[in-house]
Amino acid sequence: MSQIVDGYNYLHLGRSVKKSEHIIATFFIGSQMEINKAAQVVAGESSIGTWTDIKTLSKATFKKLSAKVIQADRRTRIVKIAYPLALFEPSNIAQLLSDVAGNIFSMKAIPNLRLIDLEFPDKYINSFLGPAFGADGVRHKLKVYKRPLIGAIMKPKLGLSWKQHAHFAYLAFKGGVDLVKDDENLTDQTFNPFDKRVRETVKLARKAEQETGQKKLCAFNISASANEMIKRAEFVKKAGGHCAMVDIMTVGFSGLQALRQARLGLILHGHRAMHSTMTRNPKHGISMTVIAKLARLAGIDQLHTGTVVGKMEGTARETNDINKFLSCKWGRIKPVMPIASGGLHPGLVPQLYKVIGPNVIINFGGGLHGHPKGTYQGAQAAFQAVEAVTKRIPLKKHAKSNIALAEAIIKWGAG
Amino acid sequence: MSQIVDGYNYLHLGRSVKKSEHIIATFFIGSQMEINKAAQVVAGESSIGTWTDIKTLSKATFKKLSAKVIQADRRTRIVKIAYPLALFEPSNIAQLLSDVAGNIFSMKAIPNLRLIDLEFPDKYINSFLGPAFGADGVRHKLKVYKRPLIGAIMKPKLGLSWKQHAHFAYLAFKGGVDLVKDDENLTDQTFNPFDKRVRETVKLARKAEQETGQKKLCAFNISASANEMIKRAEFVKKAGGHCAMVDIMTVGFSGLQALRQARLGLILHGHRAMHSTMTRNPKHGISMTVIAKLARLAGIDQLHTGTVVGKMEGTARETNDINKFLSCKWGRIKPVMPIASGGLHPGLVPQLYKVIGPNVIINFGGGLHGHPKGTYQGAQAAFQAVEAVTKRIPLKKHAKSNIALAEAIIKWGAG
Repeated sequence: MSQIVDGYNYLHLGRSVKKSEHIIATFFIGSQMEINKAAQVVAGESSIGTWTDIKTLSKATFKKLSAKVIQADRRTRIVKIAYPLALFEPSNIAQLLSDVAGNIFSMKAIPNLRLIDLEFPDKYINSFLGPAFGADGVRHKLKVYKRPLIGAIMKPKLGLSWKQHAHFAYLAFKGGVDLVKDDENLTDQTFNPFDKRVRETVKLARKAEQETGQKKLCAFNISASANEMIKRAEFVKKAGGHCAMVDIMTVGFSGLQALRQARLGLILHGHRAMHSTMTRNPKHGISMTVIAKLARLAGIDQLHTGTVVGKMEGTARETNDINKFLSCKWGRIKPVMPIASGGLHPGLVPQLYKVIGPNVIINFGGGLHGHPKGTYQGAQAAFQAVEAVTKRIPLKKHAKSNIALAEAIIKWGAG
Repeated sequence: MSQIVDGYNYLHLGRSVKKSEHIIATFFIGSQMEINKAAQVVAGESSIGTWTDIKTLSKATFKKLSAKVIQADRRTRIVKIAYPLALFEPSNIAQLLSDVAGNIFSMKAIPNLRLIDLEFPDKYINSFLGPAFGADGVRHKLKVYKRPLIGAIMKPKLGLSWKQHAHFAYLAFKGGVDLVKDDENLTDQTFNPFDKRVRETVKLARKAEQETGQKKLCAFNISASANEMIKRAEFVKKAGGHCAMVDIMTVGFSGLQALRQARLGLILHGHRAMHSTMTRNPKHGISMTVIAKLARLAGIDQLHTGTVVGKMEGTARETNDINKFLSCKWGRIKPVMPIASGGLHPGLVPQLYKVIGPNVIINFGGGLHGHPKGTYQGAQAAFQAVEAVTKRIPLKKHAKSNIALAEAIIKWGAG
């Protein structure tokens, strides 16, 4: 039972480990292998072991650095493995993933494996910068403290010129949104150059601020190679912007950490495009919970975590758990503001609010620019829907005195 | 049939597109949806569409920028989509992935999706730097032109001190290996600090070079945040090293491109730990073929692509196809040298050679340091096994006059 491929025993079942000195990973293991053996294969390959005994591994090293299987459930095939903190380099997410989410996903003997959760000691958590602003900082910047924040994704995803982009952003701001954002695949294309878009959109955001007396935020998508990304962030800063967006998964954690470490004083808006390549199969890959934890360590201020009710997959429970985590106390690392985004329209707001609550950014794309009267009225409708839920007025009742909302409901329904 | 959620028709079946002006993606779509409709959902969400019609999208923009479904097979559910090149920013892998591998993986309507292949026009390919050395450059550096190159992964993965690390590297070099590499989870830990490891290992590699008259290469794992990674690469260079290793998937393409763009003149060794979180499910995620193409664009000189015969999953056909791609002519981008790594020992070399051929780096970890006599003899056995296949001598026959190989075969078998 305790025999393991490289000749060492990683089992530590029922025995305690110091939580302050270990990173604890929860895995689901899908394999024909007996669960204790399978757990040891995972523990070995993700720490100091390999498939055969080797002459270069001393007993002292094994004792000090080997991962320990502390739970292994035969029925659910869920295991917990404790990794001594000494295995990890502080403040290095790539290194962490190469340990606990690396080769183990490729082992022939284990066809399915899912990294469900990671628990970190404070010492490790505090080696990261975390968000510069965090959820409170974002609210403070916008001076909106109680209701959900309202975002508009510029649509079409690709195809607006920089002038159109800024113009529609202005209309959305005037209609009542707090934040306007580039879509995940818009960066610096010839039809909409980054520098021109940034300058013009910031200019019109300032205009909207003066005209409405409200604060406005623009999330510009700077996703690119890390050096270029930092240059673009500096450009946003210089142009008077306060926020940059990063596609955290397609960029990767090395680029994201470099950006945060550049300490540019920008709010970082985290889009999660591509996460589903690794999160969607419930028996394989890495959970969105783990990705959210890594994004918080790295320093994202706002993170897409699911809508439950829109076009994108994701259960209410998972989204809620993640949003709860993002707002919890976690070492010295600030809380993150969750973003609900994807297929939302005003009619879905009451349902969404019921599940997610007020501490969220609600993004509207098609459900705003698709309003029968266009972007300005679409933004009004979005604002009115949020107003309804925060004032506890039924949506259809509120629509009676709010024409933009009424028209949105006629097009897309309510609920 | 041609109706699509956002009111636009992306179908272009049987019609031609200019290959020089489009990126062509091949997907498998697993969904209850009729295949043409499903293909249009993917084409829309990955280019300029969304789930509803919007007022901000003009007919001219749609015509110019919309993705086109050029093939859709009802039986295999494989589709080909052509994306106008104008959608993409040159030399930006994050942006490419946010287009063709982003939100589409999260759509409720499409539970399974796999990006099988990407074909690029030369104009796009040539916007990237590609490898600085490439396969030929690596061979030239080592002055080994015909046989497979032989690598030793330092084991245990974690736990050797910097002194031990350099010592065992020296023994492996003396025994006959060309390249010594850090394992994927070793970066800069307290028990083995990066700077000390680099200085000492380079020193002993030079010593081994003088004593053997052969060239030797050390791949130091610099995986970290992009800024730190570049600092480490500069350190390697300054210490007299010629090669750095990057965990391309846990680092991400933004960090990898930044590293290459720093033009430090180092050979880049690409480890693929974590790829299986997205490559392993044959019906979902992204294929290793696509990842290999992106790594070549980004500028990896040596890439892990599978062993077929070792501890890691991966079919012979896939590995062969990838290795073939890595060596083919591809715009102005140099060929990449594939690496076979994971669970290999001398007895597996003939089988591996038969499948993969001579243009490969064969890495040995446990199958070298686990030799009954230790690292030096383990390296000798690895070298002797490679010698046998290149001289076309049956392994067991060659073992008669090569004691290290004979002992390896006794421990692990042959074949």
